Amino acid sequence: MGRVSASPPSTASAAFASDNAAPAHPAVLDALRRVNDGPAPSYGDDPVTAQAADAVRAAFDSPEADVLFAFTGTAANTIALAAAARPWHEIYCSDVAHVLLDEAGGPVRLSGAQLTRLPSVDGLIAPEDLERRVLGRGAVHHSRPRIVSITQSTENGRVWTAQAVKEFVERAHELGLLVHVDGARIANAVVSLDVPPAEAIADADIVSVGGTKNGLLFGDAVLVRRPQEFDGIHWVQKQIGQLASKHRFIAAQFVALFSDDLWLRNAANANAMAQRLVTGLQSLGLPLASPAESNEVFVRLAPDLHRRLSESYVVHQPDHGEPVVRFVTSWATSEGDVDAALAALAR
Amino acid sequence: MGRVSASPPSTASAAFASDNAAPAHPAVLDALRRVNDGPAPSYGDDPVTAQAADAVRAAFDSPEADVLFAFTGTAANTIALAAAARPWHEIYCSDVAHVLLDEAGGPVRLSGAQLTRLPSVDGLIAPEDLERRVLGRGAVHHSRPRIVSITQSTENGRVWTAQAVKEFVERAHELGLLVHVDGARIANAVVSLDVPPAEAIADADIVSVGGTKNGLLFGDAVLVRRPQEFDGIHWVQKQIGQLASKHRFIAAQFVALFSDDLWLRNAANANAMAQRLVTGLQSLGLPLASPAESNEVFVRLAPDLHRRLSESYVVHQPDHGEPVVRFVTSWATSEGDVDAALAALAR
Amino acid sequence: MGRVSASPPSTASAAFASDNAAPAHPAVLDALRRVNDGPAPSYGDDPVTAQAADAVRAAFDSPEADVLFAFTGTAANTIALAAAARPWHEIYCSDVAHVLLDEAGGPVRLSGAQLTRLPSVDGLIAPEDLERRVLGRGAVHHSRPRIVSITQSTENGRVWTAQAVKEFVERAHELGLLVHVDGARIANAVVSLDVPPAEAIADADIVSVGGTKNGLLFGDAVLVRRPQEFDGIHWVQKQIGQLASKHRFIAAQFVALFSDDLWLRNAANANAMAQRLVTGLQSLGLPLASPAESNEVFVRLAPDLHRRLSESYVVHQPDHGEPVVRFVTSWATSEGDVDAALAALAR
Amino acid sequence: MGRVSASPPSTASAAFASDNAAPAHPAVLDALRRVNDGPAPSYGDDPVTAQAADAVRAAFDSPEADVLFAFTGTAANTIALAAAARPWHEIYCSDVAHVLLDEAGGPVRLSGAQLTRLPSVDGLIAPEDLERRVLGRGAVHHSRPRIVSITQSTENGRVWTAQAVKEFVERAHELGLLVHVDGARIANAVVSLDVPPAEAIADADIVSVGGTKNGLLFGDAVLVRRPQEFDGIHWVQKQIGQLASKHRFIAAQFVALFSDDLWLRNAANANAMAQRLVTGLQSLGLPLASPAESNEVFVRLAPDLHRRLSESYVVHQPDHGEPVVRFVTSWATSEGDVDAALAALAR
Repeated sequence: MGRVSASPPSTASAAFASDNAAPAHPAVLDALRRVNDGPAPSYGDDPVTAQAADAVRAAFDSPEADVLFAFTGTAANTIALAAAARPWHEIYCSDVAHVLLDEAGGPVRLSGAQLTRLPSVDGLIAPEDLERRVLGRGAVHHSRPRIVSITQSTENGRVWTAQAVKEFVERAHELGLLVHVDGARIANAVVSLDVPPAEAIADADIVSVGGTKNGLLFGDAVLVRRPQEFDGIHWVQKQIGQLASKHRFIAAQFVALFSDDLWLRNAANANAMAQRLVTGLQSLGLPLASPAESNEVFVRLAPDLHRRLSESYVVHQPDHGEPVVRFVTSWATSEGDVDAALAALAR
Repeated sequence: MGRVSASPPSTASAAFASDNAAPAHPAVLDALRRVNDGPAPSYGDDPVTAQAADAVRAAFDSPEADVLFAFTGTAANTIALAAAARPWHEIYCSDVAHVLLDEAGGPVRLSGAQLTRLPSVDGLIAPEDLERRVLGRGAVHHSRPRIVSITQSTENGRVWTAQAVKEFVERAHELGLLVHVDGARIANAVVSLDVPPAEAIADADIVSVGGTKNGLLFGDAVLVRRPQEFDGIHWVQKQIGQLASKHRFIAAQFVALFSDDLWLRNAANANAMAQRLVTGLQSLGLPLASPAESNEVFVRLAPDLHRRLSESYVVHQPDHGEPVVRFVTSWATSEGDVDAALAALAR
Repeated sequence: MGRVSASPPSTASAAFASDNAAPAHPAVLDALRRVNDGPAPSYGDDPVTAQAADAVRAAFDSPEADVLFAFTGTAANTIALAAAARPWHEIYCSDVAHVLLDEAGGPVRLSGAQLTRLPSVDGLIAPEDLERRVLGRGAVHHSRPRIVSITQSTENGRVWTAQAVKEFVERAHELGLLVHVDGARIANAVVSLDVPPAEAIADADIVSVGGTKNGLLFGDAVLVRRPQEFDGIHWVQKQIGQLASKHRFIAAQFVALFSDDLWLRNAANANAMAQRLVTGLQSLGLPLASPAESNEVFVRLAPDLHRRLSESYVVHQPDHGEPVVRFVTSWATSEGDVDAALAALAR
Repeated sequence: MGRVSASPPSTASAAFASDNAAPAHPAVLDALRRVNDGPAPSYGDDPVTAQAADAVRAAFDSPEADVLFAFTGTAANTIALAAAARPWHEIYCSDVAHVLLDEAGGPVRLSGAQLTRLPSVDGLIAPEDLERRVLGRGAVHHSRPRIVSITQSTENGRVWTAQAVKEFVERAHELGLLVHVDGARIANAVVSLDVPPAEAIADADIVSVGGTKNGLLFGDAVLVRRPQEFDGIHWVQKQIGQLASKHRFIAAQFVALFSDDLWLRNAANANAMAQRLVTGLQSLGLPLASPAESNEVFVRLAPDLHRRLSESYVVHQPDHGEPVVRFVTSWATSEGDVDAALAALAR
């Protein structure tokens, strides 16, 4: 095929390459089949869409929120940020943020705004580092501060505590900023924190609610908790081709995901398998590069061990030149999968 | 739910509202289930994606082409045009083009280019009308002519003959322009023309190949026949969230669509049902607003008849104030569906 | 030099090519010399700028307005439209508008919005043609109507009567649109109408106030009469390099222009010379292509006459293929200049 | 006036606030008066423009270069970067770059590209820091590296040695990047280095050549040394209103500036006055925050001293919270000006 390939074809297993290497959960596929019955109004004017939006609102205790459904996490983030920021605004994020590093510049292209990275510890930003960057800005010579994006759980597998995210959001609001939460892995954070989902995002203004990485074929939602600050967001969604015409097929997946807490059960398995992996790595004497609080495990590997592992497993090396590799577990990871990977490392 | 609603909820049938009101073809759903097996490389590095791209290339006899898969037709068009045009360029299209009227300005937003409408007969543009607009341009005070987008079959249900599209593309190339074909309903055109698919698009440089309207859950491909003119196209796709991470789930749908000529069989049913509808309308004495050469039928209805019909059927009125409504048939339309609609009109 | 040349070098006189071929008025140069005295605060924090802004406000009886100064008319228009329109908006203008045809797509590029041309008579748009295009829009599939731009006097040398502009602006406001006036030649319109300047723009929301074409070295102002609708406009100005650092040098020109009604005296000469030209053309039996109500005269010339004229004068042919040429008079045009041109035509 | 004010009105002297607080050089005003004679072709088709472009080319020994003239330094930089970078590209600059911090996000808005700051010592970037950021990029998930912008002399008053700039440009080219030089103060660097001007920019691909800060009313040029890499640059210039219609009035200023080495004589005075200031500050025991190699002097001032100084002089505090203020000298700064400022500090 003609795509620009990010990596050569490989016979190595993608089992731990990313949570998007996982298949879809069977309950999600079943929901697609059930909803595939006769004609239905398009673009979201169908009853399944209403049900899905209600489910997302309920999960995050946000009865007044607007909900949109997009196909990918990059899309959800980009829609949120492009609706918030005008081209004279400044967006803040951590130095390891997906919106900064892994979305090909989409949030900048769509908003026209500057995207400024803040120092962080594995994606966790100190309120002071935000404040230091924002204070004193505002003259016409500078981009105007507008919104800060944080990730829960972070790209490095860390989880903001309920208290930390609450304080950060409050500080951002005091500084006049909106707050976006990239929740591609929000379910993993909720499970890790063991709090009501709304506490994992505090008073954030807009949230990308991950689905793709948590058992869907594809689909990420945008929970817009202060719609008046995101005027035009439905147009942004439409303009970048993220408003599904056969909308029931994205909505039905979300209905399934939020039924019987499937989203949390999926995340719970992923987190548990990450912990199993951590235990195994530690007994092998392999040091973690950062605390594994969610479904991602970053481990330091000597180059030759990394090379040998790559014969069996595709693993991601986040920073060119750093001997750290990333394992990601998913709803579909089994104990056997983890043990096999540990065995490969033990050889 | 929170979406901006284009229309009030309705109990009327969406059967003829659009071909995107139709369900997915069972073979497509089956393909999803088959491919949902264990981990797979993401972002298109899986074998199903390679197979799908080959199928699209083969269908249009374009062995050298690059193929991308996007989620919607708006996305496919926007990716194609935004990769072709710089912000100092001018894009041309017909006065009824989807890219002009129904994509919320996405192609303009993403390209930054001017989008200039040309006069047309139901979406069919005369080469002279293109030439008249392009000649004499080129100074720094004007946008620089770059690409013309035509639609096959057109938004008004017309089909460019193989000869007409060939001549138009040649004329555009002589004028130094690239040619994009919006093929959201390309299968319907191919069936209507009864020619090899490649003849329905002539020597066009880039083609949006419709899937959503022709039996998929969602998915439209971009066939890039002159990749060197569309540098950066994979980045555009990624930036607007149209690069699926679990890529097998979009690829598998295309594999199914291009197996055993399902795409043409689906279109053949849609076209046949449109013709059955035309025959019925004519016997009711209801005049067509334009020739029905594909799977769309535009009929003039007196306001009271339109009102009465709307109690049973959602039908689209393309031009505010014009007493014309649109019926669209699909792969799923049955003879019984058509006859029921005719009976509703006969009452 | 390396610029892309719009036309080959020529020894023909540019006297009637455009009003921007004219030199600067001596009073303007004198003002520059007077203000060139010691250090001054930059970016507009100097007293001359305050004086210039007051002068523009006073001239148009708009005490509450915000005033910005830009270097060119294209800049003034682009700043106004880009501050008004988000990328999901639609901007309307006439089919001969400078913002559509002669600014290289700048307003589209900067706003990201669609720019839709309306039919007009020499740039004069009927309220019904605006209404017809706007009504029925608003769904998420369409660009959202936002602002209409009209030109006073128009690119074809016509002048909106005070009554016509009043009715048009009222109709636009009823339709929920803002109104921009491209006033690159607003002084010529005011003189032609012989009304208070504010009546020539009615209740328009934002106005480009021409200076370059009316005796300055360069400089066009933006009169923002409803600042709350143009949030961020100062950032747009800065972003495209239109906020002069040595701001006194643009402000002083405007102070001179609005002192002792120099702007109206300059325009009065230009208009009078246009009328002298019209009289002469008519006595030569050369037909006007449109009524000459301002300082532009469009005359039909047989191709051979056009060719012969071009040996002596650079004249602009607005529409490729139409045998119409444009004469523009300025503050600097003398009776002798007009008579010499008429003599060249008479030969 | 209506501008958003960056600072309250003040009776303090702007003499050291910036080199753009200075008046225009008398020779520049004289040139304006001389060129203000009768009609002239517009948009650069006049002989003075050709002369000005030749002068810029000759000064930098770049006979094949294209030259454009813009009104401001922000414009020159934005035109250069927006012509180089597509919206999927990445632009690099130092952490104190004007293009990053002081142009309101213009380069990002116009290019759509990501602008990534690199660590620096007072604006001087180590080649290794560039390399570290660029290597390993290139997949479709990342912005594609395209151009690096350096400033000569830097925003912190440092000067790249001829050897350093040569090595940096070579390294950038090896990495596949273009190089832009923001030369708003290039004359000060050339004088400081005492080398032929071309050595101060090495093999850079495009250069903003400052005029405004060095004696003009306004005007900065863009020297395009590899035009094939900057396709569309003249359209960018036009789109943002930076193509002067009465072009002779910007060209004539450059002709004056490059006659009799006025640009270097102006810079020599500014640099000499900066050195006089440095000597005085040192004898007062006030420590410099960075070496003063050009016409900017950064000095640490205790808060109360800073406060007292502000009663007499507007001085810029670059970093909110850091007790450092900036003095800038210009072509117009006299020994008396410097001594008066030192006296104010001594009190």
